[in-house]
Amino acid sequence: MGDPAGIGPEILAKAWMKRRDAGLPAFFATGDVRAIAAVWDGPVEAILHPDAARGVFDHALPVLTVEDGGEIVPGHPDVAGARCALRALELAAGLVRSGAARALVTAPVSKAQLYHIGFNYPGQTEFVAERCGIAGENAVMMLAGPDLRVVPMTTHVALADVGGLLSVELLVSKGRATARGLTRNFGIAAPRIAFAGLNPHAGESGAIGREEIDIIAPAVAQLCAEGIAATGPFAADTLFHPRARLNYDAVMCCYHDQALIPIKTLYFDEGVNITLGLPIVRTSPDHGTAFDIAGKNIAEPGAMIAAIRLAGDAADRRAAIGA
Amino acid sequence: MGDPAGIGPEILAKAWMKRRDAGLPAFFATGDVRAIAAVWDGPVEAILHPDAARGVFDHALPVLTVEDGGEIVPGHPDVAGARCALRALELAAGLVRSGAARALVTAPVSKAQLYHIGFNYPGQTEFVAERCGIAGENAVMMLAGPDLRVVPMTTHVALADVGGLLSVELLVSKGRATARGLTRNFGIAAPRIAFAGLNPHAGESGAIGREEIDIIAPAVAQLCAEGIAATGPFAADTLFHPRARLNYDAVMCCYHDQALIPIKTLYFDEGVNITLGLPIVRTSPDHGTAFDIAGKNIAEPGAMIAAIRLAGDAADRRAAIGA
Repeated sequence: MGDPAGIGPEILAKAWMKRRDAGLPAFFATGDVRAIAAVWDGPVEAILHPDAARGVFDHALPVLTVEDGGEIVPGHPDVAGARCALRALELAAGLVRSGAARALVTAPVSKAQLYHIGFNYPGQTEFVAERCGIAGENAVMMLAGPDLRVVPMTTHVALADVGGLLSVELLVSKGRATARGLTRNFGIAAPRIAFAGLNPHAGESGAIGREEIDIIAPAVAQLCAEGIAATGPFAADTLFHPRARLNYDAVMCCYHDQALIPIKTLYFDEGVNITLGLPIVRTSPDHGTAFDIAGKNIAEPGAMIAAIRLAGDAADRRAAIGA
Repeated sequence: MGDPAGIGPEILAKAWMKRRDAGLPAFFATGDVRAIAAVWDGPVEAILHPDAARGVFDHALPVLTVEDGGEIVPGHPDVAGARCALRALELAAGLVRSGAARALVTAPVSKAQLYHIGFNYPGQTEFVAERCGIAGENAVMMLAGPDLRVVPMTTHVALADVGGLLSVELLVSKGRATARGLTRNFGIAAPRIAFAGLNPHAGESGAIGREEIDIIAPAVAQLCAEGIAATGPFAADTLFHPRARLNYDAVMCCYHDQALIPIKTLYFDEGVNITLGLPIVRTSPDHGTAFDIAGKNIAEPGAMIAAIRLAGDAADRRAAIGA
């Protein structure tokens, strides 16, 4: 459910309302059941065990309540809410790890509030990775829209530092994880991954930057040698239009905005974050807590719906190939 | 007409074919009339003076021939073609400067071939600026699609060098020229310009980069003090989706791909380059010579049509406000 004072409870309720039209698999929330009631007057039902969710899902939103989230006021986060969000995340991750649930979908949390209660991970992704016994740096963030998937190979760093963080090893490692993730989660047998250049026009053969020649091209060559259909580096500006998108299954991007600008420009209300490299399926709507609109019944559930659908699809595909 | 061996002649012919449906103003080409005939069997008519264009335009594409472009083979550029392209550009720019024509639309040229014949400008923009008595750095490139306009404040430089090129002076100068250009060319009385941050999340209050605090915010403040509706810096990834686009008339972008990724992702076949800061109207389709498809009758004329339409509209607006 994420932070109980954010839009998480509202978009979960709205996703449940659209469960039939959207063809969603049965799901249940973990968190404080009162957070849903505070923003929605539809049917909610507290459950005591995940097994009860399927029987409830048809007529009410099932919620496995974790603990008292304090006094919940939409739009006003506090440390009690952060504790509730963290317990909800821990419970949900544990249930998926143990096989009691098939996939984990995380709603947005307030990192500022989580830091107040001693949470010391960059985000939910690293927390989940650790709970799965995976080093955070081996979890790969992919953002997926209806016909575009992007992987930012560096994330929250100053633009000037990006070049220094790129290395053949990093790109090869991210490329491998992406290719494997496309097969396991999206059912693509022979994934095609395209690398974007760092510099304008992919450096124009070294005239405006050498990272393409020194780092990206060798990484592409190594991935190809391993049998992965990697291509590039390509000029980033001509890599994301509709015809270009037909040529790959995912784009490996050098920096945050190179990945996030195209996906959010095209799919602002339906972008899904999926973590590759984990033993479990984990997705998330690609937006924040939006405290400014919490409780106003205007939050768009599109990204949450897409995240739940992708989680179900990915779990099905993993089961089908035994991965 | 641009390079006679590129797609310029073909897209001019196709634009003429669609002149009525697209509501285009009368236009004529400058260049080698044989370049059109080489790729199109529709009506072409050589004219000797711009005044003859209007009488011809209804039944044939008027071409003011400048000189023999050598042996024209679509897809095979050479120095004779480059000389022809340069003369065509010089003639057209001069006619617009003198008032014999109302606006200049440039088709793509081969910079590599132009450099062979001693052309020593970064591109057509700087050549035209000089012919207008304007320093190249005072000409501002804007890329315009149906509902997005972007200005790259730095262009063909390595990404690592971008931060060092940004200054309050540069941003204020580009901001002023953009605001004035939006009024003169687009008829927007009180233009709103939004500045994108350089770093992810616009630097998160200095946590991941300081250019927003040290350079962009002061530039925005100075422009506001001058009465220009400047805002930002904003996180670049959430600045280009449909609802965000309602909040500004143009985005001032820190680097090439920050501007080009969104415009080309959304409007690959209809993006127009318009040069602000010149005494004349100058537009251009936002694509290259495409030698690989020249002569195959598959080039898309959408961007050329949009460039001609915008040139006519901008000339009308300038005339209306006496600018």
